[in-house]
Order: sequence, then structure tokens, then C-alpha cells
Amino acid sequence: MSKRPTILVTNDDGITAPGIRALVEAMKTLGDVVVVAPDSPQSAMGHAITISKPLRMYKTEVHGEVLGYQCSGTPVDCVKLAVNKILHRLPDLCVSGINHGSNSSINVIYSGTMSAAMEGAIEGIPSIGFSLLNYAQDADFSAAKEIAIKVASEVLKNGLPKDTLLNVNIPNLSSENIKGIKICRQARAKWEEKFDERKDPHGQPYYWLTGQFINMDKGEDTDEWALANGYVSIVPVQFDLTAHHAVSLLNQWEL
Amino acid sequence: MSKRPTILVTNDDGITAPGIRALVEAMKTLGDVVVVAPDSPQSAMGHAITISKPLRMYKTEVHGEVLGYQCSGTPVDCVKLAVNKILHRLPDLCVSGINHGSNSSINVIYSGTMSAAMEGAIEGIPSIGFSLLNYAQDADFSAAKEIAIKVASEVLKNGLPKDTLLNVNIPNLSSENIKGIKICRQARAKWEEKFDERKDPHGQPYYWLTGQFINMDKGEDTDEWALANGYVSIVPVQFDLTAHHAVSLLNQWEL
Repeated sequence: MSKRPTILVTNDDGITAPGIRALVEAMKTLGDVVVVAPDSPQSAMGHAITISKPLRMYKTEVHGEVLGYQCSGTPVDCVKLAVNKILHRLPDLCVSGINHGSNSSINVIYSGTMSAAMEGAIEGIPSIGFSLLNYAQDADFSAAKEIAIKVASEVLKNGLPKDTLLNVNIPNLSSENIKGIKICRQARAKWEEKFDERKDPHGQPYYWLTGQFINMDKGEDTDEWALANGYVSIVPVQFDLTAHHAVSLLNQWEL
Repeated sequence: MSKRPTILVTNDDGITAPGIRALVEAMKTLGDVVVVAPDSPQSAMGHAITISKPLRMYKTEVHGEVLGYQCSGTPVDCVKLAVNKILHRLPDLCVSGINHGSNSSINVIYSGTMSAAMEGAIEGIPSIGFSLLNYAQDADFSAAKEIAIKVASEVLKNGLPKDTLLNVNIPNLSSENIKGIKICRQARAKWEEKFDERKDPHGQPYYWLTGQFINMDKGEDTDEWALANGYVSIVPVQFDLTAHHAVSLLNQWEL
């Protein structure tokens, strides 16, 4: 019987993305890895689940030696399938990523990577999402891998506070240029959407969603500040969305 | 110049769902209504946005007199399109629903209805999601309409605390049997997933996601308690997901 931890690895960029390869390589140094990931890119899927059509799942090769499954669903579907149809129990750790691009600040809401980690946490698994601030397919994940090993080791050692997961964002810097790791809060920011309107060959309009990221938060305890200043940001994330501070105020309303 | 408020109505069950019709009828008593909603059901889409393909949007008839647009995207896409391509400014109120089925407790995370309202709040619009605890297409929305008018009137009058939206769930009862309205916190609960495994005509397996709702929370201040006891539940919801209470604990780690 192995005493190595079982580590579930998933992502939202799809099972063939370089980022998940890097995360698998990192996690293999810490435990027995099982990969269950989407068969195609699922960025910006948020916490979507697939209920109006059935899911497909196939065993597949992932960088040799590692048990891998590709799934037709969303990142959240992958975590559910992994627990219920593959492992038949909770793994010791669930890691998602390494995402190609930032999931800091308000991006946590839109991110499939972070939603997979959140689903892990809802199920009761210590869970972490990792993202590198580089969208390129040929991004250098070597510093990110070191960070992933360091953070995952701490989580395996200490556990996580109940109902809490970690959102880890890594600046696009080499190991020696990363200044350190900061525990942060989510910066107050938003995407100001802009639609690129075009006409199809039949003269009908269609719209590409684009946008500009606006950081409205001047705090130096935020993930945006940390990343802009060369630090890795770690935000503890919860899925109790209650605005507890607003309850007493609303109790004054005449309802 | 009309001083009536402009009210954006959206949902996740699609523009032809009876629930959005009920919400439009209710909101017409309070202001000028603009409907921008998905052209097909988008339940359980969470906070997904559409970035890998373009969006289509068509002007359409919604119960006469009301400006309506159907959109090929997710509920969150609809809010973004409404603000940026239709209204060209923020409406005075954004309401989403009335959802066919509960969005109480952890369902807030998976819900397209609530994600549309959350997107409204992120944009800075006072926003509310409404859900009726009845999945049937022929559900009776008459009590829910009264509740929607009451809650929306209060929001138009008082505004909402910054960065807060409302998650309103309505029990499947007649008006006279609803005991009242309670301001609540999100119950601690989860879905225990179960996959219904089948074989296709070629002998290949596929999986339907199903599950059982487990309420682990005995508190009498939760939305689940309120709904089970005949009350409408209102949970103030926030999109700062930082687990602030965990920051100091994580600062003790050796990172």
C-alpha cells in the first residue's frame, strides 16, 4: 500500500495544454497523479455543469505513467466524474491549471480553472487553482512548477481552512526574479466589455466579446498589487457568497 | 422625458420561458422594460462567457410593447450585450428570472440566473435574481410576480449596498400561504453527484449528470430553512470571494 497522496489534476485549457503537462510533472514529485480534464479548451466557462446532454469520457495517455481521462464536459464536470466514476473516493488534493493567463481579481468569477478547484473544495477536497500570467502556448512554466510544488506541499502538510480553496497566480518571471509569495485579497476590478461588431458574408451582424480590465483598487494587499510588483499572489477563496455585512441593513427594509 | 426607471430583464431558461414572461409583466408595472435573454435554455451555465465564438443577437417580440432581444450566448453575455450594444448605459435595475427551480444555497454557484444578476452587480447595476421552487413549465407564477414587484420596488427606492446583489427564492405556495420574507444567509449544502451510465447503440458508454441535494446546515437563519418553512428567502450576495478570515492563518505558512 502506497502512502503517497492521490492528487487529482484538471484544468480548463484542455488535456493537451502545456500548462497541465507542467502541473502533472510538478505533482508527480509529490504523489500519485490522476488527470481528468476537458477534451477541448473550456476557458471562461465559470462554474458551468452539463445537464442537458450526456458526457463522454475516455481513458488516455498523459505523459506516460499517469492515469488520464479526457472528458467532453466542463472543468466542473471533470471533478465530479473523477470523484464519482474514477476514484470512487475523495483524492488528497485537487489542483487545477496551470492556466494560460491570469485568474486574479474578478477573473476568479469567470474562470473554468478556478471553478474546477472550487468544485473540489465544495466536495471537501483541499483544492488549489494555479495560473501563469502568460497566454502564450510556448510559455515557460518552469518557475510556475516550482511554485506549484511549494504551495501544494504546504497544503498537503497543513490542510486548508474549511470551505476554503486557494487561487494562486504567478507572474511571468523567472524563478530568480520572483520576489516572493504574498497572501492577498481579491482586488476590486472589472472587465469593461467591448463588442467587436462584424458582418458575415450574408450581411448579418455578429459580435466578438472583448474587453478591458479595469483595476479600481489602490490597496497594497491585493492580488493585482502583488502581481504587478513581482510577487506570486495567493487569495484564499470561499463559496459562501453571502454578503453577511448586508443582512442587518436589509432587515430594516419594509418587506 | 420619462422618469420611469429602465429595467433590464434577463434569465437563463431562455426568452420564451414562462418565468421571464411573468417577470416582464411584473416589471412593466414599475418601469420601462428591455429584455435581453438567451435564445435557448442555459441552465447551470454558471458565470460562463462566450469568447471562442462570436455572438448573434436579434430583435424580437416579447409580449407586445416591450423591447426584446434574443442572444445566442450565455446569461452573462446577455447582460454585457444589453449594456454595451443596446442601452449604451447602465439601466436602473437588472432582474433575472423568474427561474424555474430553486437557486438557494450552493445552487447560486451553478446558476445562470444568478450569474446574470451578478454580472449586473459587477457592472454597477442594482441587480436581483428571482427563482420559484417549481420546475414545471406550467408553474403558477402569480405569487412570485407579487414578490418580484415588492422586492424590486424596495431596491429601486433604497438601492443596494455596494457590490451586493440579491438572491430571491420563492416557495411554491399561493400568496396567502406564503408566511413572509426573510433575509437569510446561504445554507451550507452541496450536491452529491451521481452519474447515470448508459451505453449508446454502438456499445460505448455515456454519462448523465444527476445528483442529490444535501443540506448540512441546521441553522434557522438560512435560505433553506426559510423556504422549508413557507418563507421567501432573500440572500444578499457578494462577488468578493476572498475568505478574509483565512488570510492571517495562511500568513503563518512557510512560503
